[in-house]
Amino acid sequence: MTNENDGPKGFDRRELLSRSAKFATMAGLMGGSGVAGGVGLVAASSSAQAASSHNKAEVGPGELDEYYGFFSSGQTGEVRILGMPSMRELMRIPVFNRCSATGWGSTNESRKVLTEGLTPRTQKFLENRGDIYLNGDLHHPHMSFTDGTYDGRYVFVNDKANSRVARIRCDVMKCDKIIEIPNMLSVHGLRPQKYPRTGYVFANGEDRVPLVNDGSILDEPDKYHGMFTAVDGDTMKVAWQVMVDGNLDNVDTDYQGKYAFSTCYNSEGAVTLEGMTSAEQDWMVIFDIERIEQAVKNGDFKEYNGVPVIDGRHGSRYTRYVPVPQSPHGINTAPDGIHVVANGKLSPTCTVFDVRLFPDLFNDKIKPRDTVVAEPELGLGPLHTAFDGRGNAYTTLFIDSQMCKWDIKKAIAKFKGEDVEPILQKLDVHYQPGHNHTSMGETAEADGKWLLTLNKFSKDRFLNVGPLKPECDQLIDISGDEMKLVHDGPSFAEPHDAIIVHRSKVNPRQTWKRDDPMFADAVKQAEKDGVDLEDAEHVIRDGNKVRVYMSSYAPNFSLPKFTVREGDEVTVYVTNIDDVDDLTHGFTIANYGVAMEVAPQATASITFTADRPGVYWYYCQWFCHALHMEMKGRMLVEPKSA
Amino acid sequence: MTNENDGPKGFDRRELLSRSAKFATMAGLMGGSGVAGGVGLVAASSSAQAASSHNKAEVGPGELDEYYGFFSSGQTGEVRILGMPSMRELMRIPVFNRCSATGWGSTNESRKVLTEGLTPRTQKFLENRGDIYLNGDLHHPHMSFTDGTYDGRYVFVNDKANSRVARIRCDVMKCDKIIEIPNMLSVHGLRPQKYPRTGYVFANGEDRVPLVNDGSILDEPDKYHGMFTAVDGDTMKVAWQVMVDGNLDNVDTDYQGKYAFSTCYNSEGAVTLEGMTSAEQDWMVIFDIERIEQAVKNGDFKEYNGVPVIDGRHGSRYTRYVPVPQSPHGINTAPDGIHVVANGKLSPTCTVFDVRLFPDLFNDKIKPRDTVVAEPELGLGPLHTAFDGRGNAYTTLFIDSQMCKWDIKKAIAKFKGEDVEPILQKLDVHYQPGHNHTSMGETAEADGKWLLTLNKFSKDRFLNVGPLKPECDQLIDISGDEMKLVHDGPSFAEPHDAIIVHRSKVNPRQTWKRDDPMFADAVKQAEKDGVDLEDAEHVIRDGNKVRVYMSSYAPNFSLPKFTVREGDEVTVYVTNIDDVDDLTHGFTIANYGVAMEVAPQATASITFTADRPGVYWYYCQWFCHALHMEMKGRMLVEPKSA
Repeated sequence: MTNENDGPKGFDRRELLSRSAKFATMAGLMGGSGVAGGVGLVAASSSAQAASSHNKAEVGPGELDEYYGFFSSGQTGEVRILGMPSMRELMRIPVFNRCSATGWGSTNESRKVLTEGLTPRTQKFLENRGDIYLNGDLHHPHMSFTDGTYDGRYVFVNDKANSRVARIRCDVMKCDKIIEIPNMLSVHGLRPQKYPRTGYVFANGEDRVPLVNDGSILDEPDKYHGMFTAVDGDTMKVAWQVMVDGNLDNVDTDYQGKYAFSTCYNSEGAVTLEGMTSAEQDWMVIFDIERIEQAVKNGDFKEYNGVPVIDGRHGSRYTRYVPVPQSPHGINTAPDGIHVVANGKLSPTCTVFDVRLFPDLFNDKIKPRDTVVAEPELGLGPLHTAFDGRGNAYTTLFIDSQMCKWDIKKAIAKFKGEDVEPILQKLDVHYQPGHNHTSMGETAEADGKWLLTLNKFSKDRFLNVGPLKPECDQLIDISGDEMKLVHDGPSFAEPHDAIIVHRSKVNPRQTWKRDDPMFADAVKQAEKDGVDLEDAEHVIRDGNKVRVYMSSYAPNFSLPKFTVREGDEVTVYVTNIDDVDDLTHGFTIANYGVAMEVAPQATASITFTADRPGVYWYYCQWFCHALHMEMKGRMLVEPKSA
Repeated sequence: MTNENDGPKGFDRRELLSRSAKFATMAGLMGGSGVAGGVGLVAASSSAQAASSHNKAEVGPGELDEYYGFFSSGQTGEVRILGMPSMRELMRIPVFNRCSATGWGSTNESRKVLTEGLTPRTQKFLENRGDIYLNGDLHHPHMSFTDGTYDGRYVFVNDKANSRVARIRCDVMKCDKIIEIPNMLSVHGLRPQKYPRTGYVFANGEDRVPLVNDGSILDEPDKYHGMFTAVDGDTMKVAWQVMVDGNLDNVDTDYQGKYAFSTCYNSEGAVTLEGMTSAEQDWMVIFDIERIEQAVKNGDFKEYNGVPVIDGRHGSRYTRYVPVPQSPHGINTAPDGIHVVANGKLSPTCTVFDVRLFPDLFNDKIKPRDTVVAEPELGLGPLHTAFDGRGNAYTTLFIDSQMCKWDIKKAIAKFKGEDVEPILQKLDVHYQPGHNHTSMGETAEADGKWLLTLNKFSKDRFLNVGPLKPECDQLIDISGDEMKLVHDGPSFAEPHDAIIVHRSKVNPRQTWKRDDPMFADAVKQAEKDGVDLEDAEHVIRDGNKVRVYMSSYAPNFSLPKFTVREGDEVTVYVTNIDDVDDLTHGFTIANYGVAMEVAPQATASITFTADRPGVYWYYCQWFCHALHMEMKGRMLVEPKSA
């Protein structure tokens, strides 16, 4: 391996495809001739090692976990909070999904979050459908940073399916903003600025499409573009975009606040699998934030849909394209603040960059490949790399179904020609790992205690639950010299990505504040109507619009009944005046498809048309009291004819 | 306590309400003067006991659980499969919710299941809305029985929010039928017939409403009725209904195939909490199945919405009302096939019946209370009782936050006047337990290994995740003489109810059968169109309707692109021809809100209007292969003007 500009070649695709049959063979569930070979040196069996460190992962009844795990959930469209190391799911946060339990997608408060940040074109598209529902494919949850470490303000996430970025408030663990990113299709990689603070949230537009995608350009792939987006994490508006070559995949940022960098496949600009994987090299694209900000100031952009779009294609002064072996996937900055690892996917290698060399690259003092300081060959299908803060890197090998632990310094030494072996250990995982993550591992405070591997297949690891299987999130103890597998965690569609945040960084509220912006619209409307939300039992008619205000306190609604007329547009506002931790109420109207969560000290509202005459009981569906079942009342809908 | 017809009096409601402040005090999070008293004898602390049996609940990496737990999920509207004793969630089965990951609520196959069993009135109600979405409140999952034990065919569940009953096929773990129950509001308690087989699925109509609820009767509560429903579990049609007095709560059946019995509160027929809890007694209502079937044959019913409705109010020969203390809640038949336990809720007692006495009651040889053989005082807020098959009962005490273990025979002896203490142990649980369940405990094969308590509040048991907290499912080892708490499991909205089924009873498929009825409509349409679904790459235009057929095989869709016109109604059929376990594909069209799961050997279809011109990539969102990211294609939507 040399330090030449053209770098090493990717792994042969045919060999790759034949080897990918391996996982099926490993599970012993499929015949065939898959060869279980690989470049591994020290593939260690996992089961024997587990026993000694197992207790560390155990969290007994009543004991608290040390870490919050924020898990993406993939196609489910929600964010999950797990306690770690126990791997117990503590909460689901609805984001890009509809949630029957909380009323997410039904309440006025959530519908505002779900719709107000969409492009006008999408708002109209949904209006035509008469249904605000869009599926989500939530890939990458990342917490906001201050000074290179988590600050506990927000978790940002992307939606690959409908090109959105969302923000979760960590004080109440609810999503408060969702925006659609214009001028591109599919938000894939997402990472917040680490320094000086977030700041920007960078989001990759993966699929190349026409910049103005209105049908005027169709089957002309040469007129398609990829797009890199900077969202302002404070305002949740798009700050700027950079048009690029290729399909952007994952993204990360430095610890200096100067650069963001994305892996980039399909340098071919192809539209078929064959075409996308034909070239032997693709790129890491580096973005110079200061230069781009200057371009925005200087007007060196074109505006599309209100966003300044900068041309960052080859030859641009705002970007650099560093050749790396075929179809790189994950990109991860080490907590040392210096090294950045791009993971080869179709190459058995990882490529290590030194961010201190990037200024020289942008000033054309060195060539792109001169920024590469190591390129260890690790095994088949390197996808993502995590760090322990002690100089070690942990790379998932998708095809080998292994976690590879390697020493960054040794990889650099080997790249310089020294006769050293950077690989320290390989551990079998089950099966086909994608993302991985270490405790605090994407911050300057990486603590090297736990490593999570999010495996795409579980096959025979759990009781059979039919044709659809869970994925398998495995927990590995990395506190000692050797990785030790301690837990298999089944996971519904899909683990995808996660972060592990020390509990000292997160400090949620126990109850809502009455002046919270989430329900400010309801407060405003109540003021107009002269209603005190905390002491409300009002039915206000306004033409055929009826506003029903009530409060809830276990086990009562302040209104035991209310009457409306068939055809009325009814809005019910419920304020939970209980000020006791965990005393959430709900409001469901039977046979009306109306339900919402009302947590302590919150107000929630829901609007519907009363188009079924008759007697309909409403009830509290969040268990609240010994007399919870009796916490109900009647909506009487008078028929039109009456 | 005596064997008189009027039975014991309920606990004073004011005292009950004051004591219910206890849970807050226990958690140490609230001040106030709640008195932690109770009737407990041997309240044992849990933490010290946990250690010795903890290992039994541990399931190491790669090991399989011994039991399937089917969990209800409450307001989330789905069913969850947990592995037990590990308490790991293995799968979510969407039922009354929309699921972004599987396309439940979006695919044609799921929309058919969600809508075809609704009443015409509700179908019209949803049509007017232009959105088929109804929230769910899924309370009680129970497996089908043959000869008094689980037979692994189906799991039946109820929806309290929109009065539905659903069936889950255990061969593929998907919901295949949902029906709305007419002539009533809110399906609450649900249990399948245990003997000779299921057979009937009994469903309680909880809220009293007018039988014809069209607005002609509104605020006239004396014209409201409760309703008991028998669904035919094979055809998923309503077999018959019985009009009753009061609000039906929970239901169970005998092991002889003769009777079903429901707890019944609000004997007052009131419409306010005060009114509903004013009487000191309510009822257990017993239904004589043979007599009711005879009535249906003989025409002793009135038909409403196509269902024979029998009058089972006081004085009917089809029912008996047995007075029990105030607001009984759970009802549970012991595996001995003889004893039925009604749980007091607002009374500190459980009432034990001997089913062998029911024939005499129906033949008027004895009085209702003569069927009572025990009525032990257990503590505050008895809600549900489970059994270990060794003669012991385990009752949740909601207000005391305890599990009470007691001896059924001793309770009977005490009721007869013997000086014995039936209570064996009380164990603190955390906090406010509702349903509980033992391994195989509702069958004749109760094995006395595990006891699950589904607690409504978790408060300080887990890391704080904001104002909305998880519930807390706790696992208790009951294999020895003493109950031992071994695991705290956080749970999202809400645990509600669960069953624990030995894995030998369940045998799901690994892949779909190509002739599965779930996608029979797609197969039929393909035949009409002359398309072989397993080898499909067809775009068939039929006016402005376009049917797109493709197959998927990792990492390819058979169609790399297809073209439609703006405004077309497009149906995409995807057939996953991979025949490998766990190799699920997906189909998502970016920025179109279109997504579905396609498990191995399944066909799935989805219909949408192509009303956004432009280039839209579709992709596989269920990770399938090293080149999964490249498994995509383009939908080209030509603009109308073109």
